[in-house]
Amino acid sequence: MAADRNSLIARALRGEQVERPPVWFMRQAGRYMAEYRAVREKVSFVDLCNSPDLCVEVTCQPVDRFGVDAAIIFSDILPVLQAIGRDFHLVKGKGPVVPDPVRTTSDVASLRRPDVADALPVVPKAIKLFREVRPDTPILGFAGAPFTLFCYLVEGGSSKNWEYPKRMLYEAPDQARHILNLLADVVGDYLQAQIDAGAVAVQIFDTWAGTLSQEDFKAFALPATQRALARVKGAPRIFFSKDMAPYLHLVKQTGADAFGIDWRTDMRIARKALGDAPVQGNLDPLALYAPTDQIRARVRATIEAAGPRGHVFNLGHGVLPTTPLAGVDAMIDEVKKYRYPAP
Amino acid sequence: MAADRNSLIARALRGEQVERPPVWFMRQAGRYMAEYRAVREKVSFVDLCNSPDLCVEVTCQPVDRFGVDAAIIFSDILPVLQAIGRDFHLVKGKGPVVPDPVRTTSDVASLRRPDVADALPVVPKAIKLFREVRPDTPILGFAGAPFTLFCYLVEGGSSKNWEYPKRMLYEAPDQARHILNLLADVVGDYLQAQIDAGAVAVQIFDTWAGTLSQEDFKAFALPATQRALARVKGAPRIFFSKDMAPYLHLVKQTGADAFGIDWRTDMRIARKALGDAPVQGNLDPLALYAPTDQIRARVRATIEAAGPRGHVFNLGHGVLPTTPLAGVDAMIDEVKKYRYPAP
Repeated sequence: MAADRNSLIARALRGEQVERPPVWFMRQAGRYMAEYRAVREKVSFVDLCNSPDLCVEVTCQPVDRFGVDAAIIFSDILPVLQAIGRDFHLVKGKGPVVPDPVRTTSDVASLRRPDVADALPVVPKAIKLFREVRPDTPILGFAGAPFTLFCYLVEGGSSKNWEYPKRMLYEAPDQARHILNLLADVVGDYLQAQIDAGAVAVQIFDTWAGTLSQEDFKAFALPATQRALARVKGAPRIFFSKDMAPYLHLVKQTGADAFGIDWRTDMRIARKALGDAPVQGNLDPLALYAPTDQIRARVRATIEAAGPRGHVFNLGHGVLPTTPLAGVDAMIDEVKKYRYPAP
Repeated sequence: MAADRNSLIARALRGEQVERPPVWFMRQAGRYMAEYRAVREKVSFVDLCNSPDLCVEVTCQPVDRFGVDAAIIFSDILPVLQAIGRDFHLVKGKGPVVPDPVRTTSDVASLRRPDVADALPVVPKAIKLFREVRPDTPILGFAGAPFTLFCYLVEGGSSKNWEYPKRMLYEAPDQARHILNLLADVVGDYLQAQIDAGAVAVQIFDTWAGTLSQEDFKAFALPATQRALARVKGAPRIFFSKDMAPYLHLVKQTGADAFGIDWRTDMRIARKALGDAPVQGNLDPLALYAPTDQIRARVRATIEAAGPRGHVFNLGHGVLPTTPLAGVDAMIDEVKKYRYPAP
């Protein structure tokens, strides 16, 4: 733990003066790596998520291959739905499917409030294992934000327009709040369990909050994330949304300690809106397909836009499955070579 | 024309004092209407776009059914691709497909700079026809913005990540600019032809600009839209992007006269960023699935957020195919009932 507190990422997330930004990237353990695809040939996605040993194996892959400054435990956001009573699986070319979505009053009544230690043991166990096998690499925990989980739970899968979740907000707001509160409590306890297991920080992904009007973001997504994060102590809590720009003036109200910025949002404008809060991001994942001299120039421009304190280098969204490894190499190398000017 | 200049929408787009905002909505002629689906049972989408008479027939449908304050000519953004040498068709459940995408130098060389009067005659002709059959209803023209058309042209269809268009920006920026300039000139002339045919205003849709980092937006999408709009005179030019918030501080540089605001962007923040420029929007299209008292309350809140001058009521994105007609009725009725407080 002591080594972790002095790690580059921990110092950057406390806003301390560091020599360069730490670097990790969203979905760094994933399909763009042959090592990962080899594991997935042997097991289904859900089985992978259920095995602490395999989670650790794939979590180590980008650490060993690229020398990132932090790992993020391999898992998915949807095991939380299993914990409250709904299975999911991945369908190739379609994404996650929740075969029994929650829409009616009796569906809602069938949800349970689990004990997180019993219902979600895999990720905390994997974090502990990872710390044994890679003691020098700090590891992040994560969870989906309540509204994003609510979207999958009510829609029954992914969607462009999220008709069913939004209709529940309009037609049965109290029922929606009941589900969001349940998810918030489970997500909060789950993030706490990951910190207790040794995570240096935790990130909450509110991917689909970006589909909401200001009014609905304030009424539903924001209070649910506040409620989840209020339960979490002892390590920095990072808030990420795929669409940050419309809500930049509101996200500090989540109570998060740091903010992941998507690749469309101007980093300088984000900095102004967020005051002293550390930020993470925000290179366009597609930039990794560019010639390497351009990747390097964009990496430097991103670091300069974020400024010399409280910046964790990251992509502005998850790395894509077809990403060339040479692009990832160039990005990591350029961040690690960078030195902030003397203050 | 004189009647048009004094129409509610023309006055609102000039920022004059009016009694209530005018209302129309994106994709108001479309699949959510049984009358439209009946036409589409007889002809393909591309054939519909190629027939001035049928375009006028479906353009009239929402005018006659809902009494909107303006029509928008029925068409698609992709006929411009046909005009420069690439066919397209719609594939059910998949969207537009451009079977012969433009990726190599020789692909680019095969593109042609058409005479717009010859290559894109349908929409101007349909606008003239509409003005004969519905002389009391102002009609808007539109086109896709150069970058959005470039996306379909290079990708060969729709995409989540736009790998091919972005790779061309990185790997062959001069080639990308050549295509964007060609598209800008054709789009500009096409919008001018629609104004010359009698459009009260024109809207340029930069749907996919919202996939670009700040740097790429400034380097590619913005100058291309500037170039297109610089060719257009004689009627207000409205800029719309599905993701306005990240670029709010930049979009005035397009040179547009008014701005369509998407449903996630805070209307008050947009107003502050855009100064005196008239705005359009921005009810969440999903809000039309809400109980009607909620629709009405949200319509009033939208009007109040936009303020009493220079506001055209609209949805924040196109109406969805499964939208209940009762929701549309409630929205239109509430806008038409509204009266601005005395100044």
